[in-house]
Amino acid sequence: MTTVAFIGLGNMGGPMAANLAKAGFNVRAFDLSAQALETAKSQGCEIAATASEAATDADFVISMLPAGKHVRGLYVDGDAPLFEVIKPSALVIDCSTIDADTARQVAAAGAEKGIGFVDAPVSGGVGGAQAGTLTFIVGGSEAQFAQAQPVLQAMGKNIFHAGDHGAGQVAKVCNNMLLSILMAGTCEAINMGVKNGLDPAVLSEIMKQSSGGNWALNVYNPYPGVMENAPASKGYQGGFQVDLMIKDLGLAMDVSQQSASPVPMGSAARSLFTLHKAGGNGKLDFSSLLKLYQDKSE
Amino acid sequence: MTTVAFIGLGNMGGPMAANLAKAGFNVRAFDLSAQALETAKSQGCEIAATASEAATDADFVISMLPAGKHVRGLYVDGDAPLFEVIKPSALVIDCSTIDADTARQVAAAGAEKGIGFVDAPVSGGVGGAQAGTLTFIVGGSEAQFAQAQPVLQAMGKNIFHAGDHGAGQVAKVCNNMLLSILMAGTCEAINMGVKNGLDPAVLSEIMKQSSGGNWALNVYNPYPGVMENAPASKGYQGGFQVDLMIKDLGLAMDVSQQSASPVPMGSAARSLFTLHKAGGNGKLDFSSLLKLYQDKSE
Repeated sequence: MTTVAFIGLGNMGGPMAANLAKAGFNVRAFDLSAQALETAKSQGCEIAATASEAATDADFVISMLPAGKHVRGLYVDGDAPLFEVIKPSALVIDCSTIDADTARQVAAAGAEKGIGFVDAPVSGGVGGAQAGTLTFIVGGSEAQFAQAQPVLQAMGKNIFHAGDHGAGQVAKVCNNMLLSILMAGTCEAINMGVKNGLDPAVLSEIMKQSSGGNWALNVYNPYPGVMENAPASKGYQGGFQVDLMIKDLGLAMDVSQQSASPVPMGSAARSLFTLHKAGGNGKLDFSSLLKLYQDKSE
Repeated sequence: MTTVAFIGLGNMGGPMAANLAKAGFNVRAFDLSAQALETAKSQGCEIAATASEAATDADFVISMLPAGKHVRGLYVDGDAPLFEVIKPSALVIDCSTIDADTARQVAAAGAEKGIGFVDAPVSGGVGGAQAGTLTFIVGGSEAQFAQAQPVLQAMGKNIFHAGDHGAGQVAKVCNNMLLSILMAGTCEAINMGVKNGLDPAVLSEIMKQSSGGNWALNVYNPYPGVMENAPASKGYQGGFQVDLMIKDLGLAMDVSQQSASPVPMGSAARSLFTLHKAGGNGKLDFSSLLKLYQDKSE
């Protein structure tokens, strides 16, 4: 039986670990939160007292952590670095969204000990994590990508090989920067049309079928009432928080700075989402950016 | 037999008139260019000595002109305003991309004489005009929209009713502003990915199937070689010129200004396309904006 250690059982990691257990993997879960561990246990995971206990002798080690420093601390330079206990034939799959440099450095540190490491950030949100329909964007060798397949398929639907180590993080950050741009542009275009007398649903349909067509118009319309199941029609609850988009745009700015890549549109989008957060909207779904554009009473 | 007067036989109007003649309409064509008239004649149109001669007794009058002042001059306040000669049961279909205010004013001037007028700007470019697959975005009453159908169907594929007079122009300008934003964002994201070691085709495919998906990635990839038939793979020849995008973004800025609609992303995109034009690229396809982002040798 294949043993998978799963470190980090938050809103994303919790349901991902549960899907692995449901698919028949022997999942050894660890988190700092006792409540998260209880939930994991009720969903068929073994629970471990420490990350080291979870990772020892595991065939795969998956991590889902907030930022690069946590990933580096867990594997390389924390109190009990997992690269000291993971067996050489195992593969580490880090699903955290972190900076590409850290991903490359941790991969290199693993390689020194003969341990494989891929970056495999996800998109698809909490809903995708629960439904097992996440998208994984993987950076690593062809052999490592092949090795990761059975585990990733138990948690996701689309699994892409972006390139070598770090490429998964770069591709994710490019995608999410583009997403921020097209969501801001969509909010802006719909708002201008509505202020000029157009029906938001009619205008959305025209643009969706024309050259303005994009993911937001297809599945995530930011105007309340146009799309029944979109966060916009549920008070902008659920979905992908403004705070998380701002985190990803910060990573995009880092990549831009390190590589001297011009990002005028991404920078503008980042400013808009940050203005929107300053207005007290950090916990709302990111499509609530529409509210920043709309007229308030004077 | 239904007679259609067609005024303005440029790169777009010429093939549109030819498609009407091919569909069996009696087309009376007029243009200031003798050569355009010759071409129209060879494609089955009657040619008229003046716009008034073409429009007198016609069932439909179609115009395809560069800007609002030309449309107003043709119908309302020029030397020989067509509203003096068009019969009241006729419908005027103005396919020019002009400002919404002029469209509304000309519609009102027509209504005073009992002549119907709809704004019906197109998208789909010269290729769409030739193939008869244009998109028409129509502003006018329900009855006028219905009346225009047989004529528009002979020239286009998707025919949308955006709303009342002027709504066609507003919807087109919203769409094209959004298009400029998503093209700039797509150029920016691909360029940053490539500078960080990713393959442009692999990154494009990942974003296309993820939340960065948009029309440019689907049918108009700006990176040379990714999409065989896109202008990017043909030296950015053909397609939709930077100069025309800048014209449409100027109209978007007018709509924004008149309605106090905030357009930070559209303004940023307009600045980028204008910088690109300043670099001597006004006649290239608009996806050539990628070149503005790419490194040149120092």
